[in-house]
Amino acid sequence: MGRQRASSSYQMGNSTLEVPITLFAENRNRLLAELKKVTPKSIVFLQGGVAINHYNTDTEYPFRQEPFFHWLFGVTEPNFYGAIDVLTEKSYLFYPKPSSTDCVWVGKLPTQDEFTKKYMVDSVLYEDDIYATLSNLNRDSLLVLKGTNTDSKLAFETPKIPSIESFKVDYTTLYPIIVELRVIKTPLEINVMRYASKISSNAHKYVMKNLKPGMYEYQAEALFSFYVYNVGGCRSCAYTCICASGENSAILHYGHAAKPNDKKILDGDLCLFDMGGSYYGYASDITVSFPINGKFSKNQEIVYNAVLKARDAVYKNLGPGSYWSNLHRSGVAAILSYLQELKLLKPGKIDDMIEAGLGAVFQPHGLGHLIGIDVHDVGGYTENTPQRPMKHGLHTLRTARKLLSNMVMTVEPGCYFIEEVLDAAFENPALKPYLTEQINEFRGIGGVRLEDVVLITDSGYEILSVLPRTIEEVENFMANPTIEDL
Amino acid sequence: MGRQRASSSYQMGNSTLEVPITLFAENRNRLLAELKKVTPKSIVFLQGGVAINHYNTDTEYPFRQEPFFHWLFGVTEPNFYGAIDVLTEKSYLFYPKPSSTDCVWVGKLPTQDEFTKKYMVDSVLYEDDIYATLSNLNRDSLLVLKGTNTDSKLAFETPKIPSIESFKVDYTTLYPIIVELRVIKTPLEINVMRYASKISSNAHKYVMKNLKPGMYEYQAEALFSFYVYNVGGCRSCAYTCICASGENSAILHYGHAAKPNDKKILDGDLCLFDMGGSYYGYASDITVSFPINGKFSKNQEIVYNAVLKARDAVYKNLGPGSYWSNLHRSGVAAILSYLQELKLLKPGKIDDMIEAGLGAVFQPHGLGHLIGIDVHDVGGYTENTPQRPMKHGLHTLRTARKLLSNMVMTVEPGCYFIEEVLDAAFENPALKPYLTEQINEFRGIGGVRLEDVVLITDSGYEILSVLPRTIEEVENFMANPTIEDL
Repeated sequence: MGRQRASSSYQMGNSTLEVPITLFAENRNRLLAELKKVTPKSIVFLQGGVAINHYNTDTEYPFRQEPFFHWLFGVTEPNFYGAIDVLTEKSYLFYPKPSSTDCVWVGKLPTQDEFTKKYMVDSVLYEDDIYATLSNLNRDSLLVLKGTNTDSKLAFETPKIPSIESFKVDYTTLYPIIVELRVIKTPLEINVMRYASKISSNAHKYVMKNLKPGMYEYQAEALFSFYVYNVGGCRSCAYTCICASGENSAILHYGHAAKPNDKKILDGDLCLFDMGGSYYGYASDITVSFPINGKFSKNQEIVYNAVLKARDAVYKNLGPGSYWSNLHRSGVAAILSYLQELKLLKPGKIDDMIEAGLGAVFQPHGLGHLIGIDVHDVGGYTENTPQRPMKHGLHTLRTARKLLSNMVMTVEPGCYFIEEVLDAAFENPALKPYLTEQINEFRGIGGVRLEDVVLITDSGYEILSVLPRTIEEVENFMANPTIEDL
Repeated sequence: MGRQRASSSYQMGNSTLEVPITLFAENRNRLLAELKKVTPKSIVFLQGGVAINHYNTDTEYPFRQEPFFHWLFGVTEPNFYGAIDVLTEKSYLFYPKPSSTDCVWVGKLPTQDEFTKKYMVDSVLYEDDIYATLSNLNRDSLLVLKGTNTDSKLAFETPKIPSIESFKVDYTTLYPIIVELRVIKTPLEINVMRYASKISSNAHKYVMKNLKPGMYEYQAEALFSFYVYNVGGCRSCAYTCICASGENSAILHYGHAAKPNDKKILDGDLCLFDMGGSYYGYASDITVSFPINGKFSKNQEIVYNAVLKARDAVYKNLGPGSYWSNLHRSGVAAILSYLQELKLLKPGKIDDMIEAGLGAVFQPHGLGHLIGIDVHDVGGYTENTPQRPMKHGLHTLRTARKLLSNMVMTVEPGCYFIEEVLDAAFENPALKPYLTEQINEFRGIGGVRLEDVVLITDSGYEILSVLPRTIEEVENFMANPTIEDL
C-alpha cells in the first residue's frame, strides 16, 4: 500500500455497471484490520478457482471464481493464487507462467505489470515464485482457509503448493474471520448487488412479457439468461434456473438435470420462476409467481394472498436487531392465519399449529438466507450465532441470526400444496386435527413463492428487487407489460 | 432383450427433434456384437456423470452426462451407474435411493419401473444393489473404461464402487472397442447431429442478423445461446462460445474466462464466431466469419477468399478413403498458393513451403476433427490409426485417419495473422525467404475460419451446417438476412 495507484475497474459493455477494483482492496483492508489484532506476523494464502474439464475431455465447465478468492482479489481468470502479508499489508497474486503457444490458442495474457495495475495489488508473480516469495517474508504462520459450508455441508479444501508443510500452517484463524466479514456488505459490494438485482428484476419482467401459454418452461430460462447477459453483462446465472409451472411449482428446487424445465405451460397454470443473474461474481436471487394467462384463478389468488400476508408480516418487523427465526415464524403464522380465516384450516391457536409443525407443511423452507457472492452466502451459522433450530419446521432455516445493517438477505415466503407432504400431514395425529377436506381442492395447484433481495439498513430495509407484487400489480403488468431502463 | 418394450423418446418442446431411445439400445448392441467375440462371459460396468458443486458451496455447474455413459444409455440424470451382461445381453441401470424429502426439494424421480421404460433397459435398481447384482451374475470379468483422451491428454477414471477389487477387473478391453464404435455414427445418431447443426446454423444467422457495430462480442454469445435453447431446446452449448472481432479473431480459442468476449465490435471489424449447440448430448461446432458492417474490405476479402480456396480444395477430395492429413495439406497448400498468386508470398514451391512449416504460420491448427458427443470426439489417434505426425505444422492435427462412411468431421480451414507468429516467421531463416513486406499490412486484421460439420457418406460427403459461405452469399445475407424454419 502507500504508493499511488491508478484506479481500475471492471465492466462488460457500455451500459453495464462499472465496478471499481478498490472494492477488493477494501475487503483486504477489512481483513487486515482484524488479523492485525490476532496474528500480526502472518501471511494469508489462498488458492483461486481452477478450470474444470468435462470429465476427461478437452472442454470445460463455465469458469467460476472461488468465492473467498473473489472476495479478496476480484480476479476473473482461473488458476491464480493470492497472498497478503499482514505485517506490511502487501498483496500478491501468482499465476501460471504462460507457454510460448498461448498467444495462438488462448491469446496473450496481461504481463505481470499489467495484472498488478488491473487488480491493484502490490505484486504479481508467477506460480513458481510462490514458495520463495512466502519463505522470504519469514513470517510466523501461513493462514489458510479451512471450514465447512453450512448450506452444502462441504468442507473447504486447503490450497496445494509444494512444501506447504515447511510453513507453520494455521488452519483455524482465517475462515471464521473472513466468513464474518463477508456477512456484512460494503457500500461498493452493495452497489454491485443492487445492479445484479435490478437487471434480474427486469429480466423477470422480460420473461413475463414474452411468455405465453403453450410455450415451454425452458423458454423462460432462455429468455431470462438472454436478458441478464445481453442487457446486463451477466455471463451466468447465480444458480440453476427454476422455471416451474402448474404442479411443478410445488417442487422447491425444480429445474435441475432430472427436472429440466421441460413441461409445456398450459393456459391456467401458475408459474413460479426463481432466477437470478450473477454480475462480477455477485448474485441475485428473485422469485416471481404469476398466472401465465394473466388472470389469477380464485384458488391461485388465495395461495398468492397467503404469501403476500406473510411478506407483509415479515417486512413489518424487518430491520437491524430483528431475529431471522422470529421473522420466519411471523411469516409462517401469517400464512396459517389467513388459511384459517378462509376456513381452510380448522380453529386452533396458530402457536400450537406451528409447534406441531403445520407451518412446514405449507412452507417447507426457511424464510430466506444471506446472499452475496454465493447465493446462499456463507455465515448462516457460526460459533457466535444462534445455532440451527432443530424443532420440526425450523431446521431448514439457513440462518437464525440477529440482523445487522448492511446484511443482504432474501425474503422468500412461500405456500405450497405438495402431494406427499399433505398425505403425511393427514396421517399425522398432531396435524390432522387442523386440516379440512377443502385443502385437498388445492392439490395440483403447485405453489407460490415471492422472493426479494433485501438490504438491511440502519433505519430498516431496502428491497433491491423491483417487481409487481400485489395481485393487482401482477395482473396489470401482464395486461400491459413495460420494462423501465436500468 | 427379447421381450416387447414400448418405445420411448427424448424431446424438448413441440418443435424440437424427437430422439428415439432405441439409439442407445443400438449402441449397446453394437458393443455387444464386438465383445461377444472377445469376452463373451463378462460384464460392462460404467459410472455415469456426477453433479459437481461450485467449490464447497451448494450450487452446481450445469450438469453434463459423461460421454461414454451417454453413448450407451442416454441417461439425462446425474449419479447413475450402468452395466451390461455380455452373455445375456441384459442392461442394468443403478441410481441412488431417493430420500424421503426429495419430493419437496427436487421432486419425485421416476420409479424403477418408470426408469426401465424411459431408458428401455432390462432392469433399473438402486445403487446399493450394484455389488450383489454384479456378483450374482458370476461372470469371468468386469470390463471398465481406462484410457487417455488424445485431445485433452487426460486419463479416464475408473468407476468407484465398494469391493470392485473383488471382481476380476479388465481395464484394457473396453476402452478401445467403444472408442472405435463411437467414431462411426449410426443413422439415429446422425439424425441428432444433423438437427444440432441445423439449429446451430440458424442461430449463427440469427446472430448475424441482429448484431450491429457498437455492440459487444458477448452479445453474440447471448443471442446464439438464446436461439439454440429457445428454438432448439439446447440447454447448453457444446463448448465455450468464441465470439472474436477485429484482431481477437486471430486467437484460436478466444472467449474463455481470461478473454471473455468483452470487446466492443467496431465498424470495419471482421467477426469470427465459433459456436455450436448441444442437443441431447450431441454436439455441433460451426464457425462463421463476416464483416460486421456487411461489406468485406479489400484485405478482408483476400483472407476470406484464401480460406474459401482451402475449403474448395478439401471438399474436392473429401470422401471415404481419403486421409485426413492429406486433406489438411491440400487446404494449407491452397491458402499458400492463393497468397503467392497475390504476391503476398514470394515465388517458391508450395511443397517446400509446407515442409518448412509455412502452412502453420497462417493456419496453426489442424483441418478439423471427429465430432459426436464430444466436440473433439474420441478416436482421433488409436493403436490402429496413423499416429500423430510430429513434423512442424502437422502436430496440431486432431486425427490423421483414413475417412470412412458415417464418420462426422468438422472441416475448418483458417487463415490468421498472429503478431507473435509472424514475428517468429520473419526471424526464421527457413521461412523468411517466402515472406513479403506486404504481409505486414494484414497485421491486426485478425483471421478467418470457415467451419462446417460434415458427414462422410458412401458417395462423398454431406455438409450438415447450412450457412452463406461465398463473399457474395455473406454480403447478400447481411443485406437481407432471412432464416428458414427448421
